[in-house]
Amino acid sequence: MAIRIGILGYGNLGRGVECAIRQNPDMELVAVFTRRDPAAVKILTEGAKVCRVEEAASMKDQIDVMILCGGSATDLPVQTPEFANMFHVVDSFDTHAKIPEHFAAVDKAAKETGHIGIISVGWDPGMFSLNRLYAEAVLPEGENYTFWGKGVSQGHSDAIRRVEGVKDARQYTIPVEKALEAVRSGSNPELTTREKHTRECYVVAEEGADLARIEQEIKTMPNYFADYDTTVHFISEEELLRDHAGIPHGGFVIRSGKTGWNQENTHVVEYSLKLDSNPEFTSSILVAYARAAYRMAKEGQTGCKTVFDVAPAYLSRKSGEELRKEML
Amino acid sequence: MAIRIGILGYGNLGRGVECAIRQNPDMELVAVFTRRDPAAVKILTEGAKVCRVEEAASMKDQIDVMILCGGSATDLPVQTPEFANMFHVVDSFDTHAKIPEHFAAVDKAAKETGHIGIISVGWDPGMFSLNRLYAEAVLPEGENYTFWGKGVSQGHSDAIRRVEGVKDARQYTIPVEKALEAVRSGSNPELTTREKHTRECYVVAEEGADLARIEQEIKTMPNYFADYDTTVHFISEEELLRDHAGIPHGGFVIRSGKTGWNQENTHVVEYSLKLDSNPEFTSSILVAYARAAYRMAKEGQTGCKTVFDVAPAYLSRKSGEELRKEML
Repeated sequence: MAIRIGILGYGNLGRGVECAIRQNPDMELVAVFTRRDPAAVKILTEGAKVCRVEEAASMKDQIDVMILCGGSATDLPVQTPEFANMFHVVDSFDTHAKIPEHFAAVDKAAKETGHIGIISVGWDPGMFSLNRLYAEAVLPEGENYTFWGKGVSQGHSDAIRRVEGVKDARQYTIPVEKALEAVRSGSNPELTTREKHTRECYVVAEEGADLARIEQEIKTMPNYFADYDTTVHFISEEELLRDHAGIPHGGFVIRSGKTGWNQENTHVVEYSLKLDSNPEFTSSILVAYARAAYRMAKEGQTGCKTVFDVAPAYLSRKSGEELRKEML
Repeated sequence: MAIRIGILGYGNLGRGVECAIRQNPDMELVAVFTRRDPAAVKILTEGAKVCRVEEAASMKDQIDVMILCGGSATDLPVQTPEFANMFHVVDSFDTHAKIPEHFAAVDKAAKETGHIGIISVGWDPGMFSLNRLYAEAVLPEGENYTFWGKGVSQGHSDAIRRVEGVKDARQYTIPVEKALEAVRSGSNPELTTREKHTRECYVVAEEGADLARIEQEIKTMPNYFADYDTTVHFISEEELLRDHAGIPHGGFVIRSGKTGWNQENTHVVEYSLKLDSNPEFTSSILVAYARAAYRMAKEGQTGCKTVFDVAPAYLSRKSGEELRKEML
């Protein structure tokens, strides 16, 4: 019998989860839950329902794992504990600084009701975190480096859109090749924020807007751009839609460390992602961890977990025998 | 209290484990066990003992985890089950085809006596296997590629040494850059053995040997070289010792896969290693998994495990709270 999945929230991430479920024959989409009018939400999966969020409580017996596809700012801090009271849940909570707090809230709700909640699943936090951990455990004397991009940062694009005279914008975060090479050399360089990434902005200005002022405002914006070398390109709305419609992303986790009685040997471990679609890749990870949640719950485990607590075998559709034979 | 480690076998791998223990303050080397005369074996760690293999049975209470550093051909198939009767054990068994059989033997011995045995720990099998599994679980529609090198293959170097007229030799396995690029492009190419790797041989010939015949014999050797583009360089013994004394290795695990309702998006996941010392890196992984074995045993788990069965958090010296705060 297939693992029965519910999706809460049908934005880019929810649609990505729907697509990923289709690629995993041991899983089945039962329903999408939305705060919008269900009649106005069209999904792709034949046979799956669109329901109001409030209906979820009455569908506990029809869904094995609920995948939460809301945002980290306001949705997930409320929804994940709330739904962990009713379902096994997986979310992609990515506000790094607030993870301990979120973990505690989900752990309490999940333990009280005998559920599992796997939080902060995605690629960072998620796959990148795993690679930071594995590499540090293996090479305790060394340094971890994380680079992001080339990819679209939604937060930075939004920040540009708030500048007066800006109609639309797309911001790319780009790792600096020279910094990557320095890290790969094993020299464990100290790198400033400016040395690690540059920011490239494609901006559509309102007619008659003062372009020099817009560029200046972007480049000096604290937190977002002031600490980076930033390039601003003004383009037409047509060009933005034609050339910058995708949501690519990616990045690198690199650790270099020493071994030997006198630390005479250097090793470099590198993990990298090149993603055409940031939300679809994140969704695919969520679905693999939904499988893990289902299996760990079957074994009687409860409470909040992160990718660190999930043995890799739980993620794969293959049995232990198959994995040892084919993948080890 | 530190985790008390025993090392069985004191070759390159055993020495590497000794060095790695020194980098992990929560671990302590109690004794090295050897089949040689203990008086003839000099180790580096002050306070640790050198014992005959036979003494191990009487030291069960002094050692938490025994790390087995023998070879996969004849040592580990016998030693790992035997020692899993007495200790929690970790080995680096790397004969891929015989892993199921080895797993069964260790599982039986470990379960009968309430121990844990983690087998096939290293980088391939090991870290590479983990990356194959994670990437496949996340991108079920795609293809895995593994490349090895640039690095020294002990087996191929030995094969060359068996050719008449060869005094010494070192063989490097080298991934073909063009094949790597094709895989990284996301095009999921079909690659033959010859297209993936080349083999480069540095050979010291006996005085007066027929170099043309040696080169021909190497290049046409079945299994080892016949299916590859092989280059043979004749060098002096002095050059071999000067330029080819290290044991570097490394490689790449790359998966590219598709997502989206109509598979419209491509993603490339790449993991790579660049290692100055193959045995020291493998040893460092063994030590991290010894920590995991100790902790999983404390929780009452028993039987044979592989890297697939070990939740990442068990590998790190950090607590769950620290990991979530610092690494997630």
